[in-house]
Formats: sequence, structure tokens, C-alpha cells
Amino acid sequence: MPREHYLDNSATTQVWPEVADLVREVLVERYGNPSSLHSKGLEAELLMKSAAADLARILNCAPEELYFTSGGTEANNWAILSGYESRRRRATGVITTAFEHSSVLEPVQYLAERQGAQAVFVAPDGEGHIRPVDVLERVDGNTALVSLMAVNNEIGTVLPIQALTAAIKKKAPKALVHCDGVQAFGKLPINLKAWGVDLFTFTGHKIHAPKGVGALYIKKGVHLPPLVRGGKQQRGLRPGTENVAYAAALALAAKRCAKDRARNMERVTALRDRLLAWAAADGGVQINSPQDALPYIVNLSVPGFRSETLLHFLAERGVYVSSGSACAKGGPSHVLASIGLSGPRGDSALRVSMDAGNTEEDIDALCAGLEAARQSLVGRR
Amino acid sequence: MPREHYLDNSATTQVWPEVADLVREVLVERYGNPSSLHSKGLEAELLMKSAAADLARILNCAPEELYFTSGGTEANNWAILSGYESRRRRATGVITTAFEHSSVLEPVQYLAERQGAQAVFVAPDGEGHIRPVDVLERVDGNTALVSLMAVNNEIGTVLPIQALTAAIKKKAPKALVHCDGVQAFGKLPINLKAWGVDLFTFTGHKIHAPKGVGALYIKKGVHLPPLVRGGKQQRGLRPGTENVAYAAALALAAKRCAKDRARNMERVTALRDRLLAWAAADGGVQINSPQDALPYIVNLSVPGFRSETLLHFLAERGVYVSSGSACAKGGPSHVLASIGLSGPRGDSALRVSMDAGNTEEDIDALCAGLEAARQSLVGRR
Repeated sequence: MPREHYLDNSATTQVWPEVADLVREVLVERYGNPSSLHSKGLEAELLMKSAAADLARILNCAPEELYFTSGGTEANNWAILSGYESRRRRATGVITTAFEHSSVLEPVQYLAERQGAQAVFVAPDGEGHIRPVDVLERVDGNTALVSLMAVNNEIGTVLPIQALTAAIKKKAPKALVHCDGVQAFGKLPINLKAWGVDLFTFTGHKIHAPKGVGALYIKKGVHLPPLVRGGKQQRGLRPGTENVAYAAALALAAKRCAKDRARNMERVTALRDRLLAWAAADGGVQINSPQDALPYIVNLSVPGFRSETLLHFLAERGVYVSSGSACAKGGPSHVLASIGLSGPRGDSALRVSMDAGNTEEDIDALCAGLEAARQSLVGRR
Repeated sequence: MPREHYLDNSATTQVWPEVADLVREVLVERYGNPSSLHSKGLEAELLMKSAAADLARILNCAPEELYFTSGGTEANNWAILSGYESRRRRATGVITTAFEHSSVLEPVQYLAERQGAQAVFVAPDGEGHIRPVDVLERVDGNTALVSLMAVNNEIGTVLPIQALTAAIKKKAPKALVHCDGVQAFGKLPINLKAWGVDLFTFTGHKIHAPKGVGALYIKKGVHLPPLVRGGKQQRGLRPGTENVAYAAALALAAKRCAKDRARNMERVTALRDRLLAWAAADGGVQINSPQDALPYIVNLSVPGFRSETLLHFLAERGVYVSSGSACAKGGPSHVLASIGLSGPRGDSALRVSMDAGNTEEDIDALCAGLEAARQSLVGRR
């Protein structure tokens, strides 16, 4: 078997051994139920509090503003479905972008179809940017909720959340602003107080914590009804026995990412530049990501070859990338369609998503793989 | 520090080291996203399929009828909220018992308050049994959903789910029957095909798998709308990147429980009998569980002493029990109130929840602790 070159980090990441060790230790040693009144319960409760405190410090919010969920999908659904529920008596407009993750698009679509919402899906321009004016001109007194991703998961576009939120709040002070921060968390500096959003989603498995844990930030003073009902856990707003081990893991991974953020960005930018330099010299590869995209994500097309064919060819050589997002599992990409790449260029697109743990060798293996693919696959175009 | 005597297994259990090792291994080695098209993704997808197949074999259902959730609370909410949504155009009656878990009671209450449901909460009799006739006489053509727990979490009452389901279906063929099987799973034989329920909830953390994973069984042919919307994971019905490590852990723990079920029941019954014999000889302790309760749960009262005082006294000696369920965190028990024990006897109740890993020494430590408590705490009555 060839050495593995994992370049699909926006789909999911390897859990760091140190983080997995913590999970194991909590599962076996500190296994109490945080709601139990005895010391085994207290020990688990303290772990939950410490995880929330660590995350709050990183995001500049209060620990009591954070609610652990089963991941980004649940947090996005909660923000959108319950956010709309809390506003619908006085406002029914919901504004989002056409290239959000499906866990934002689908709930918004549901609200439009079943709950009387007026949904607007703002399209990015041909370069993959959301123009602030295109969002703001749709905001009015009937706006209940605006949901904007911080970083697009397929092409890496970075949205100016802080400026957009300020402008939205000026036009519609009562509108809720939600940000899906899944692809930004751990990579970009995030200051929730400064950003001014009401709701913010993040998750663990993009930053070397496990799949199955995320969180929703709910700004103090914002009343969000629960999505699930039951016990008194998490102030009654997100009941269910807490996944203590994963909460602790999420906090540990986030701390490591925060500590190394600047250095990681530097490393990944150098890797990205290496890939772009090869693509420019090669001439047969087109870059679909905006020039100012988050360096962690490079979307590229190899015209004449289908994404899946390329993907499997690369995988046989131990190079792992994706076509579109993993969540769409091979379906056509709504993100690429939204920036006008629905034709052959869209059909031959690959998402390369890097991590500070990647090396120049990984990039070189990818480039060599793409070159070999073009040689070998000519007959299979 | 004294040796630990953990007798709070219905609140949560220690994750078996073997199960925790598997979690760690999957997190670090088999970390792919099951939706990814390359071999890392396939490897993770196979883990999910294998976990579902193992669980389906244990429960006698098809793997495609199982949907992993973040735990029992989510599964119960999904069954009740979406089950009602699927039926409400033609039926609005919802029947459950007064001593269900809060993750059943709260959603039913919400449906009654906000969605026009006619909710009925059938009370147990003074011995802690649900009389089948009390359920059946409320079932009629307007019954949308019936939700019944297999085993009560505070006093251990075992409900005759198979007989009740057959009788309900005879009277109201279109009513959905949901069973919260959280406290039965891994302890009692469960045959979903024979039981005939439409929906069945179970969870990991009561059977030595981690907190944060459970599942909902949805019988083939039953159309249940999703609770959260997004990607195509789990046939689009429960989207969100799968918690592969915990799904595998749930299956492993369930397999061990299934293999040892008869022997475990024998062990725990002997421990239960030891506790009951002491209580009978002692004379100062009252048993609140029905005589035919699941042996894993013994609810008892030490009249004249408050539950919390006793609990903390025992915890200082390394004996961990609970007052009511952990989910209620010290609030008065609605379960004990429902069987008429809301007065002093309810205020002095403790739940002792055993496991096959417990020993006679644990029971003796509990009994000695209770005796010592009565000596020491007289002044603090």
C-alpha cells in the first residue's frame, strides 16, 4: 500500500492521538453522568464546564452562551428552525446564500415550503464571492433571520461576517443573524463579541476532534426555543445526557488549533502556493476557488476528466481528495453551479482540502497523480 | 479514598475498556467520512454498516430500519414529534404513561400545548404497574401515537410491550406505537419483529458504550419525517456526518450484553435478592419497586431521612446511587409521585441500579452505608 496523502480535511480529519487518548480516558475513568449528584457526577460536570470555558475563551464569549450538540447539522437546524419559530409572528423573511451547506439550505427550504417563510438565496458572483450589497438589499423590516457561512466548504470563499452583521443589524435590528462557522473554526480568528452574530455553529471533526460533537453559540439575551425537549441538561435548552468525552475532546483540539493558528495558516498557505504554482506552470488545470479564499481549500478542475474518475485514480495512489463536499456524496455540486460552473468544468472539479499536518510531499503526490491521470485516463475521458 | 461501589448504572455506566479502545482506534486510524468516495470513506462506511448489521441481529430487525442518533433523548423526540406530524391530519390523540422519561413527557406536552394533540398520561397503579386496560380504553380511532417505555428508569417496572402493541394495533391499526427501550436494551431479550412496534429507542451509555450515541428503529413501511435536515447521510432521514466510532462502540457493547444476557440477569438477580433480604431483615427500609421489576433497578426508601442527605453520605463512603433519575437532577420524582409516593416516603427514596459487573461486596457496602447513615444522621433528620 502506498503512503497515504490525506487531502480531504474539509470532509473530516484524523483525530489527533492526544485527543483520542483523552476520549478514551474520560470514557473509562471519568464516566459519571454530569447530572448525578454524587462525586462521579460532579467530576463529569466539571469536565463539561471546563470544556465550555476553554471554548468560550477561544471564541470570546461566555461559557453559558455555548450549547454542545451532536455536530454542525444539528446546530444549524436548531439555529434556523428555532430562530424562525421565535420570530415568525412578526417577521417571515429568511435570507441565506445559494452556496450554504445542505444543513442550512434544507431547513430554510423546509421553512419556505411548510412554515410560510419568504426565503431568499443570495447567489455568489462568478468569482465565488457574496457581494454584501446583494445580501443587504434583501434585508428589510420583515427579515426574521439571516444565515451566512463564514467560509464556504467547497471553494473556500471567506465572507465578511463582522461587517455584514453590523450592516444587517443596522437595517433590521430585530433580525437574528446566524453564522455557520464550521469551516472557519480553528483556522480563522473568531471573535463572537466583535462579530456581533446572535448564533454561531461550529463542530469538532474538521479540527481533529471526533465526528459527532459540535456546538451552538446563543448570544446572551437571545431567546431560542429548544429543538429537542426532555431533561434539564444544558439549561434545559439542549437536553440529553452529555457526551462528556467528546466535549472535552472538542475543547482540547480547539485549544491546540488556537495556539498554533498563525503558524498553521503560514504552513498551509505555503502548501497552497505550491499547488497553485504547479497548476499555473502545468496549464491544464483551472482553479475554481476565489483568489482570496481560505488557503485550506483549493477547488480545481482538470477539464476533460470526470471528478469521480480522477478521485478514484488518485485514491489508488493513496491521495485522498473529494469531488464537491462529502455530504453530497457524488451528487452534482450546488456550490459550483451557484458560481456558474455547472458544465464540464464543474463535472471535472476536485476539492483539495489541506491541513497544517500536510507536507510538500502530499502536494507533490497530488500533482504527480493528476499528471499521471491525464496520461493514463485519456481513453476514459 | 475508599474503593468505589458504583450502583448508579441506570444513570450511566463505565465504558468497558475494550469498547473505549475501539473508539480510540477508529478515531485515529479509521477516521474517514463515510460519505467520502475514496477508500478512507469506504472503510468508515463499512464500519457503519457492520454496526447496524450487528444491532439488527440482536434486535431482530433489518439494518436499514436503524438510524443512529445522538442518544435516547433525540430518538424519543424524533419518534414523538415526527410521528405525530405524520399522523396529525387524520388523528390527534397521543397516549403515553405518567412515568415515562422526560424526553417522552416533554415532547408530548409540547404537542398538547402547541400542536393541538389530545394527550393522555396513563397513571400506574399503586404497585407501579401500568394496567393494560387503562391504556387500551383510551385507544380509539383518533389515536395518532402511543408511546410506552419497556422498563421504567426509576422503579424498574417492566411493561408487556408485545401484548400491549398487539391490542393497540387491533383497536387502532393506523396508530403508531413507539417504545422507549433505553432501560431494557442489553438487559431483556428484545425481538422487534415479534413486539410489532413501529418505533423503538435505545441508547449506548446504559450498556457500557459512550454517552452521546443511540438509535431509533423505524419499521419498514413507516414514513417518519426527519427531525433535522441536511445531507444524504442515513438515507437522508438523519443527516449529519456519522459518529462512526460511537456507532461501532454501541454495536460492540450490545454484542457483549446479548452474549452474556442470561448470565448477567442471573448475577444481578442474586445481587438484588441479597439487597432485598437485607432490607427485609433490617425492617427500616421500604421497597418502592414492584415485586416483578427488572432486577437491575431497586428503588427503596429509608423513612425519616432525605434522599440527598443519604446519597451524599453514601458517596463519601464510595457508594454511588441516585435519588430519582439523574436527568431530573435532584428535583422531586414524577415517577414516585405517579405511584402515590410523593410524601415522606418519596422524599427519602434512593434508586440503586446494578450491573453484572457489581459484586456482593458492593451490595454489602451499600447496606452497611445505609445502616451507618441511620446511626450518624439521626440529628440531621
